[in-house]
Amino acid sequence: MPELRKDPIIGRWVIVATERAARPHDFQTEPTAKKGGFCPFCTGNEGRTPPEVYAVRNPGTAPDTPGWKVRVVPNKFPVLRIEGDVEKRAHGMYDRMQGLGAHEVFVETPEHLTTLTPLPDDHITLVLEAMRSRLNDLKRDRRMEYGMLFKNVGLAGGASLEHTHSQLIVTPVVPRRVQEEINGSRRHFEYRDRCVYCDIIDQEMSVDERMVMATDRFLAVTPYASRFPFETWILPRKHASHFEDSDRDALEDLAFILKRVLLRIEGALENPPLNFMIHTAPFRSGPLEHYHWHIEIIPRVTRTAGFEWGTGFYINPVPPEAAAEYLRQSSED
Amino acid sequence: MPELRKDPIIGRWVIVATERAARPHDFQTEPTAKKGGFCPFCTGNEGRTPPEVYAVRNPGTAPDTPGWKVRVVPNKFPVLRIEGDVEKRAHGMYDRMQGLGAHEVFVETPEHLTTLTPLPDDHITLVLEAMRSRLNDLKRDRRMEYGMLFKNVGLAGGASLEHTHSQLIVTPVVPRRVQEEINGSRRHFEYRDRCVYCDIIDQEMSVDERMVMATDRFLAVTPYASRFPFETWILPRKHASHFEDSDRDALEDLAFILKRVLLRIEGALENPPLNFMIHTAPFRSGPLEHYHWHIEIIPRVTRTAGFEWGTGFYINPVPPEAAAEYLRQSSED
Repeated sequence: MPELRKDPIIGRWVIVATERAARPHDFQTEPTAKKGGFCPFCTGNEGRTPPEVYAVRNPGTAPDTPGWKVRVVPNKFPVLRIEGDVEKRAHGMYDRMQGLGAHEVFVETPEHLTTLTPLPDDHITLVLEAMRSRLNDLKRDRRMEYGMLFKNVGLAGGASLEHTHSQLIVTPVVPRRVQEEINGSRRHFEYRDRCVYCDIIDQEMSVDERMVMATDRFLAVTPYASRFPFETWILPRKHASHFEDSDRDALEDLAFILKRVLLRIEGALENPPLNFMIHTAPFRSGPLEHYHWHIEIIPRVTRTAGFEWGTGFYINPVPPEAAAEYLRQSSED
Repeated sequence: MPELRKDPIIGRWVIVATERAARPHDFQTEPTAKKGGFCPFCTGNEGRTPPEVYAVRNPGTAPDTPGWKVRVVPNKFPVLRIEGDVEKRAHGMYDRMQGLGAHEVFVETPEHLTTLTPLPDDHITLVLEAMRSRLNDLKRDRRMEYGMLFKNVGLAGGASLEHTHSQLIVTPVVPRRVQEEINGSRRHFEYRDRCVYCDIIDQEMSVDERMVMATDRFLAVTPYASRFPFETWILPRKHASHFEDSDRDALEDLAFILKRVLLRIEGALENPPLNFMIHTAPFRSGPLEHYHWHIEIIPRVTRTAGFEWGTGFYINPVPPEAAAEYLRQSSED
């Protein structure tokens, strides 16, 4: 069972593998994403993953056989496990918990594609619907507090398999980074009686310096204090705190803008490694006036070094205004 | 002039280059550390760096000529610049400051070595004395609030030149990560009337599960909530908040343990990329009872991906107890 350990100074949580610990020589060479060869996510290899927990299937096809469009399976090497109780214990002066949680993988297509963007809009909508469904399902587990949906693309993005997929990790505590956003946006709300993300949307639409694109329901911008070159956020224009409450129309529009923003980033940076994360509100809070769900897309084209790790500062060599201009001019083809 | 921009939600600072912005194609290929060929840090090439601000020199040798052992120069491509005023301004709803600060490079030896560890102990003491001296000098500039000393080794560690060197970046604000440590250790002190780092030292010395090595004055441990495999902290055993107040004896002992801990990490992981950072208290605070300076060493053998970026959680596949055991058994040769 993995273990959650809390740093006694700043309260940061770390998931520590305690069963089958990696040995030093596991780290002596650069990891490589498996290219070519056997892919457990390709159609026909359904037996090589844990049994599916959700799938969009052709009528009449059986679970864990071909005939699916989107398929969700538990991660074969989960960082957290679903069995057990939330058990908080002291360990000398330290705090730890059992590594309880869930870790699922969304295989976005049966074809061996390395990115989401060649898929048609309505297929991407199916992926987003799968995400919404799994999040709502796992939210019913009262031991759980938060669900982070994310996608890793490319080796430098932390992807260990190249077949396009995304992941959901559900945790028994609200993660620190999310709590900081909740706290920060609550402070803004207390002071101004407005959502800080709604204020950002208004400001960005009026100054038009960092806009990448807009649809009826969403806005894509390079944030004012972008940490990374070409960092792009997608925000719903109408205030909403929980991604998983989105309706079908919203997910269709989101699929449209997400695909086109990713295509522009792929075009500008020639298929960079990247991550995106869906930031939604915690499971146990009802609709929040001060928090606004959103997607953060971070191309991984710079490296973080000692200064960033030591200070929490970031160094961004590309002003977001310049990045937005490149992305506006970049092609969606 | 670079610009400091503040994230309006969680207050994170980002240094944004605004003059000569990098263009997309600068990021389309993996950066490579310059190997072989011309090295501006090698002896004989003193004219290819900005003029030195500090050096340990043989008697009778002139500045910016050969004859030095340790040499400190301004960074040729500084992330912050020393000229100007701390000018805080609003930019619509956002906050920004001029990118005021200092950025210096410590060339640790005239020889083209790629790591600090082949140097004799007394030479490493000279490097640490240079760090102490530059920090104390820049602290006198009342516009400045903090100095972060750090070292990047290897491409994945963010080093752009392989000749062994470390860096100092001085900032006009106390960095967020440092402030979190100060706040966290203050909370511990208010509750228990003890320094949390002193408590960690006591606990680690008594349980002896995560100890790597100890000297008269320092302790090296793998922290209980290690974020990274083989993460190792070096702490002074006697409480002290500011690295730059260390005396000669302390720096000699620190050189001894730092070299041997790095040798053990190099041995266990076969010369991994790594960073180390010296965490000291802010410039404008006197000696603090609750804060304890220390060095954090992080080998860069795992990759951070979407989950880590989205949540602030870390996933560590090597329990610190196993890492400490490997490091204790690892050779210093």
